[in-house]
Amino acid sequence: MNTANPRDFKAATDTRVLEAINPSSEYFDIPEHEPLRLDGNQLLGPVRVAYQTYGTLNAAKSNAILICHALTGDQYVASPHPLTKKPGWWEVMVGPGKPIDTNRFFIICTNILGGCMGSTGPASINPKTGKHWGLDFPVFTIGDMVKAQVRLIDHLGIDQLFAVVGGSMGGMQVLEWAARYKDRVFAAVPIATAAWHSSQNIAFHEVGRQAVMADPEWAGGRYLELGKVPRNGLAVARMAAHITYLSEEALHRKFGRNLQEISAKSFSFNADFQVESYLRYQGSTFVDRFDANSYLFITRAMDYFDLAAEYGDVLANAFKGTKTRFCVVSFTSDWLYPTRESREIVHALNAVAANVSFVEIESDKGHDAFLLDEPELFATVRGFLNAAAERRGLKR
Amino acid sequence: MNTANPRDFKAATDTRVLEAINPSSEYFDIPEHEPLRLDGNQLLGPVRVAYQTYGTLNAAKSNAILICHALTGDQYVASPHPLTKKPGWWEVMVGPGKPIDTNRFFIICTNILGGCMGSTGPASINPKTGKHWGLDFPVFTIGDMVKAQVRLIDHLGIDQLFAVVGGSMGGMQVLEWAARYKDRVFAAVPIATAAWHSSQNIAFHEVGRQAVMADPEWAGGRYLELGKVPRNGLAVARMAAHITYLSEEALHRKFGRNLQEISAKSFSFNADFQVESYLRYQGSTFVDRFDANSYLFITRAMDYFDLAAEYGDVLANAFKGTKTRFCVVSFTSDWLYPTRESREIVHALNAVAANVSFVEIESDKGHDAFLLDEPELFATVRGFLNAAAERRGLKR
Repeated sequence: MNTANPRDFKAATDTRVLEAINPSSEYFDIPEHEPLRLDGNQLLGPVRVAYQTYGTLNAAKSNAILICHALTGDQYVASPHPLTKKPGWWEVMVGPGKPIDTNRFFIICTNILGGCMGSTGPASINPKTGKHWGLDFPVFTIGDMVKAQVRLIDHLGIDQLFAVVGGSMGGMQVLEWAARYKDRVFAAVPIATAAWHSSQNIAFHEVGRQAVMADPEWAGGRYLELGKVPRNGLAVARMAAHITYLSEEALHRKFGRNLQEISAKSFSFNADFQVESYLRYQGSTFVDRFDANSYLFITRAMDYFDLAAEYGDVLANAFKGTKTRFCVVSFTSDWLYPTRESREIVHALNAVAANVSFVEIESDKGHDAFLLDEPELFATVRGFLNAAAERRGLKR
Repeated sequence: MNTANPRDFKAATDTRVLEAINPSSEYFDIPEHEPLRLDGNQLLGPVRVAYQTYGTLNAAKSNAILICHALTGDQYVASPHPLTKKPGWWEVMVGPGKPIDTNRFFIICTNILGGCMGSTGPASINPKTGKHWGLDFPVFTIGDMVKAQVRLIDHLGIDQLFAVVGGSMGGMQVLEWAARYKDRVFAAVPIATAAWHSSQNIAFHEVGRQAVMADPEWAGGRYLELGKVPRNGLAVARMAAHITYLSEEALHRKFGRNLQEISAKSFSFNADFQVESYLRYQGSTFVDRFDANSYLFITRAMDYFDLAAEYGDVLANAFKGTKTRFCVVSFTSDWLYPTRESREIVHALNAVAANVSFVEIESDKGHDAFLLDEPELFATVRGFLNAAAERRGLKR
């Protein structure tokens, strides 16, 4: 592992913890007397929902698009991340004149329940103890993330979202919105996602969780109290996950068997190959911006996701009676959420005669394609949203 | 991680270390004055080669088959493992009347150089220091493993092996034998393997190595001296690797989203899903039989493997002038060494007009298929070896 200067490292941790408790973004506090009833049956409140908005809500409040982020995403979809200072995670997609056009639509993106960028999560302070929640935070689900979003949308006075859009775990939230809150979603765009988490995906998540928990610095989840960080464990988890976000082709094109800036093998355990140092870097930078316990809880929520199971094992039942217009998107080289899992969603929608278009995009970039410069994805989302906006009677 | 009784655990470690130094199997010691010249250019000697044999060598010494084991294999191909007491790792394939028939052939299987079942490796004692080698052991290659095997074959007085057979990393050794020692290999059977290790495979190995090295019990590789074991790190490495040995279909068929013996989700970090407890078990039992430093070194050797690079980046050059008969086998659902990588070997062999047959076997069991009950694999190996034996003039 890269070892940063301990002083810088402490500072990075402090800023990160501060951001978890007191976000740079806007936020809405769900009051204690109106707690969330979680799927695990606990009551949770107060709950902070940190969020960002872009563009302007029209007078009819009919042009709002909720963007749902993926596992390690956040509310900074189209503006710089306060910790890393990097551009928003989906600036290729969201902005003035972009496929999700902030000149036309009002964009809302919340940090999910359980996240670590200001929404209530395991790094937040448990008001009952005055300490970080840690593992005492209740295990939550994708459905619970959406419940928190619903409260924010209520608070903003929006009856119906024009669209809910998201990739990967964001797509799971899109499906949950479309299933549970049918009248409140005019259009839904689930990208590179699935209606249930496969056993291979559960297996990869379990490896990541065990890597975190194996790190003595994790300290049974009480590392924040103790001023520790399970740096190595979380980095290993991220490295393993990162491989699954790429395709073999993408890795091969990017790195092949290229050596680092050395002319021959070092015959050592140095990062001889570029792919090794790339992965080490991915692991190390991730730790500077993400909370290890959040990682445990959110992967758990994804593993638990099974929309069909919630509807008597018949996915179509989840969408019965829907009037929402759907645009389902998958990528050919995505092996985390392969096209066949998108097709299952489409088949279920077809079974209830829903309005659905489906696009499988040819790409060799793997699951990550949904975040990258993919002109066919942009054209698909732009075209679908514009046609839906026409239907909704939104002005150009 | 499962935590074993510390007393049992210590005993398990001791037996394991004893086995690394003083194997239950036969062994041959390459003398100090005839050291191996490793690819990293060090001289290594003395070197112990631990091995097992099955069947009888004929008078002409023309019926010997060398079986090469994979990453975590050993010499106990068709007899019980001295630590786990489990049957040999390829008893479905090797034995009286089996596809590799010990009634007809003389089978040799060595523990590879760098292994931990009695051949010289990082768990062995460095004669210069009197301590376990640990990270001071020289980084070795697939070619170096084969050099040690060549010495044993010389010692046994065998001029030409009737066949060299192996799957996965064993297949890499088969290719190395066929390229470097053409006259000494009558027939070669590389199964579920590749002539070079892909960047995705390097990436997965790097995750495993970082998991081991992140474990404080690894102690810079000096854990044996210190009486420690990097249990958690090695278990995580094994878990990640294990996923790559299976196909998504196999995982789905085996586990689906089935819960453990509980009726509903626990809303905790317990192993709710069967696939989670299966992986944890795989990780935990592996630690009882394998040395963490061996794991580091052997994965490194695999990453370094690139047979084409050794022959001016033209794989065909590796086989120029070969008279060996080849049988190349791949499995449809193997994503670690996909069929296209076997095809590259076949193309190279075709380019030098070698005698080669190629079979892609339909299986949904992933890379692991080569170790499992796969009738088409058995028929292929049996048929190929019998035909080659005919050619070689071996009596039935």
